[in-house]
Amino acid sequence: MDLVELYQKVRKEDKPLSCAAVVVAAGSAQRMGFDKLGVMLEGQPVLVRAIMPFELSPLISEIVVVTRADRLEEIAELCDRYNLKKVSGVVAGGKTRTESSLAGVMAVKSDCGLIAIHDGARPFVSQGVIERCVMSASKQYAAVPVLKSTDTLREVDDEGTLSGTCDRDHVVRVQTPQVFLADLLKGALTDAVQRGISFTDDATAVERMGVPIQTVEGDEENIKMTTPQDFVLARGILARRAEQKEAKA
Amino acid sequence: MDLVELYQKVRKEDKPLSCAAVVVAAGSAQRMGFDKLGVMLEGQPVLVRAIMPFELSPLISEIVVVTRADRLEEIAELCDRYNLKKVSGVVAGGKTRTESSLAGVMAVKSDCGLIAIHDGARPFVSQGVIERCVMSASKQYAAVPVLKSTDTLREVDDEGTLSGTCDRDHVVRVQTPQVFLADLLKGALTDAVQRGISFTDDATAVERMGVPIQTVEGDEENIKMTTPQDFVLARGILARRAEQKEAKA
Repeated sequence: MDLVELYQKVRKEDKPLSCAAVVVAAGSAQRMGFDKLGVMLEGQPVLVRAIMPFELSPLISEIVVVTRADRLEEIAELCDRYNLKKVSGVVAGGKTRTESSLAGVMAVKSDCGLIAIHDGARPFVSQGVIERCVMSASKQYAAVPVLKSTDTLREVDDEGTLSGTCDRDHVVRVQTPQVFLADLLKGALTDAVQRGISFTDDATAVERMGVPIQTVEGDEENIKMTTPQDFVLARGILARRAEQKEAKA
Repeated sequence: MDLVELYQKVRKEDKPLSCAAVVVAAGSAQRMGFDKLGVMLEGQPVLVRAIMPFELSPLISEIVVVTRADRLEEIAELCDRYNLKKVSGVVAGGKTRTESSLAGVMAVKSDCGLIAIHDGARPFVSQGVIERCVMSASKQYAAVPVLKSTDTLREVDDEGTLSGTCDRDHVVRVQTPQVFLADLLKGALTDAVQRGISFTDDATAVERMGVPIQTVEGDEENIKMTTPQDFVLARGILARRAEQKEAKA
């Protein structure tokens, strides 16, 4: 495939490509049983904290927020209230994660080289992670932040008996933002939606096109708010950040 | 194999078998760069918090602690100071995890039906997890607590490019205590050590004997202190526990 050959080439320039961010917050939060994105973490809702690092990043030119159709106004107001000036649009998601990603990607207005897709439930992404992803995708077209598992991983069968082993050194936890060449991402998501396929992460859709995905180092703080335990951890992260700020002042 | 046939049978009685606990704290803490087991968590060192739930459990009759040879006295004094009355011995570990487990298992004095092996770096195991493991192992001889991964898991190749997929529904994170029929565990560990094999978790040694390992539900709080991030989470867990206690009082 010509496409694959093209994308396997490494750009020589060190300058990052321009990048828009799509923050996807269209899920129904079934696992938590309540609106986790609206939970206040020291004065800011989870969703606002998920958007803010992109608002503050010099590498990001525009932000699109994807949410449920019945929350468009509410979320647009929220972005106003917290002065998120880069947000160019709040759009409705689709029935699947992949449809929601596509809706966000198609709503990007500027002519960006790259698009970063980020989970609306990840409130603690650092500037370092954003930078690593954008720089890597600028050179090799597709990059995701990952972390090694610190736990022993094992496979289980349907009866809950331990079965196969899992090579921990080669298994990673995938985070976001996932950053891709904009045209590549649009093509991959459009193709998946047309075929009725949905992926829980966007890298898998892009990979399906035959494009290798580079990994960069993620961050332990870049957690996805999924279980009540994550709110315990969030509190610890905020306390530590406050202490670090105090120590600097 | 007769052994396998025997262990595949399910005991009919509902009474738990008697159980000793072996707490393994013989590692060199290379990942943390400091003595993580000695870190104070609100008045108690990590290791003491790891032992305490077994001290308090009505299902546990005896505790053996495995540590480095140069810390035997120090750890014995620690157990005295915190009034851990069930600790019958503090013994030196071996060169590998499996040798250390075996040293602990062989030091158990009472004639217990089961032995629970627990990581000395897991300070937050609940009574519920201990009970589930002991009850399951009482019926089916080998049980470990596990949790599903909340992250998307992927495989990477040696160059750090995403490669294979990972079926998240069938991959679990393995915790401790891991509880086994005492004779079965002794046989499995002895055999592994004689053959010069070491395993990072004891269930794998037992599984090698052809015995199926049952899984029971673990606990999100039952973390292993591995990275500095885990101490942030530990602080959150202790704060939540204090609040719950206050709410009850």
